[in-house]
Amino acid sequence: MYRPHAWIVNIGNELLIGRIANTNAAVIARELTLMGVIVKRIVVVGDYLDDIATTVREAVGSADIVVTTGGLGPTDDDITMEAVAAAINTPLVLNKAALEMIEAFYRKRGLQLTRERLKMAYLPLGAEPIPNPVGAAPGAYINYSGSHIVVLPGVPSEMEAMLKIALNRLAHILPELCVAEEGITIEGIPESSLAPLLRRASKLCSDCYIKSHPKGHEVENPIIDVKVTASAPDCDTARSKALAVLDYLKKLIQGENSA
Amino acid sequence: MYRPHAWIVNIGNELLIGRIANTNAAVIARELTLMGVIVKRIVVVGDYLDDIATTVREAVGSADIVVTTGGLGPTDDDITMEAVAAAINTPLVLNKAALEMIEAFYRKRGLQLTRERLKMAYLPLGAEPIPNPVGAAPGAYINYSGSHIVVLPGVPSEMEAMLKIALNRLAHILPELCVAEEGITIEGIPESSLAPLLRRASKLCSDCYIKSHPKGHEVENPIIDVKVTASAPDCDTARSKALAVLDYLKKLIQGENSA
Repeated sequence: MYRPHAWIVNIGNELLIGRIANTNAAVIARELTLMGVIVKRIVVVGDYLDDIATTVREAVGSADIVVTTGGLGPTDDDITMEAVAAAINTPLVLNKAALEMIEAFYRKRGLQLTRERLKMAYLPLGAEPIPNPVGAAPGAYINYSGSHIVVLPGVPSEMEAMLKIALNRLAHILPELCVAEEGITIEGIPESSLAPLLRRASKLCSDCYIKSHPKGHEVENPIIDVKVTASAPDCDTARSKALAVLDYLKKLIQGENSA
Repeated sequence: MYRPHAWIVNIGNELLIGRIANTNAAVIARELTLMGVIVKRIVVVGDYLDDIATTVREAVGSADIVVTTGGLGPTDDDITMEAVAAAINTPLVLNKAALEMIEAFYRKRGLQLTRERLKMAYLPLGAEPIPNPVGAAPGAYINYSGSHIVVLPGVPSEMEAMLKIALNRLAHILPELCVAEEGITIEGIPESSLAPLLRRASKLCSDCYIKSHPKGHEVENPIIDVKVTASAPDCDTARSKALAVLDYLKKLIQGENSA
């Protein structure tokens, strides 16, 4: 079964100076993964037209789905729509549906459209605006040359509300696949001793992914979370596959301890 | 004054499936920024040799400083050293100093060197190991073709302890520059109304960077954090420059409100 590949592109200088951690990427990556998409890369760039356009162009050339966050607001450094348009060689145009959303937003609040507010109605030619249930700036969905580009704002509450809308819009290209994750915590075995057992357990299932996360110190107090991710057309099968790998791993550990 | 550019490359499937947020990148970005480095890009890739090597090669070609995290442990998917070696066309070799660190670590704990433990002593030819005060796997510092590559583990406590050592190692290329950040919170003005005032205030200082972060809703309850970052050879000057921009902005807001 083909699983679409995705890149996530997060735009904003606040991420590059470390003022905030990139929680948006984690939220989007988790949602995409649970829907059967393989996230291949996350790239953070600053509020610079060339950096954004270059990265979006590379993403569109590499992935089926590209999700961007940030740079949709009214200030001068909010230039994501312009950069996405440049990346796909498309003009930035006043989008009527986006204009209606923005007019309705400000009219309801008794405010005029200023130059800064009007700016948020400009989308790449051919884009569909994604309504923003929380703030003013619409997002955009663009189907370009076989790639699906989703442009979302950077404010987490807005991003999360619009991500749901965007994923519904992408439903037709998502695989009918359930991804299950099961885990165990193993105490008392250094990761370097667990490694050969993980290697053997991973051979049980070709659709499974096994990963160890050390939580304690390597030797004095080894605590290791082992997570197994498995995919299948239905969730019960996916879960069974993941649990089977963990059961086999437990047996290998018991065998090692009793040897 | 020339400020070195940096890329941060975070390696690990757990980031791409959204199990954890990339806090390592935020910590590294903040430390580098405070030392006068401009972080240009953060890239997250999975535990795949080609993806890591391609990204590190691109980073080395684009930045003065490349910091990687993750993939240094004893398991089979810990392949960062191999990928960095491939990226810079250098063989992976048993590093004597790294071997001594690892031997000492396990000897102290009464454990033998296994294949998995020995693996952590292989570094790209010419690399200097960075000692790990917390765990087993050393990091690496590599000076390659004018770029400075720092390879750190993914476990945050290990990464943070070793980042300090690595930044000392880089001290000779860091500018003598202090970066100051000052901020105010502005309530009651929508970001779209604040935008033209920010544009005017930003013209006061060419070394300053002004950024607005909406915290409340655009119109009902507008709360906006405005942060100004300024750099200068000494911290007092940097702070004064940032405060001057904020003072000017406050005057513009007062003028707007009384108009």
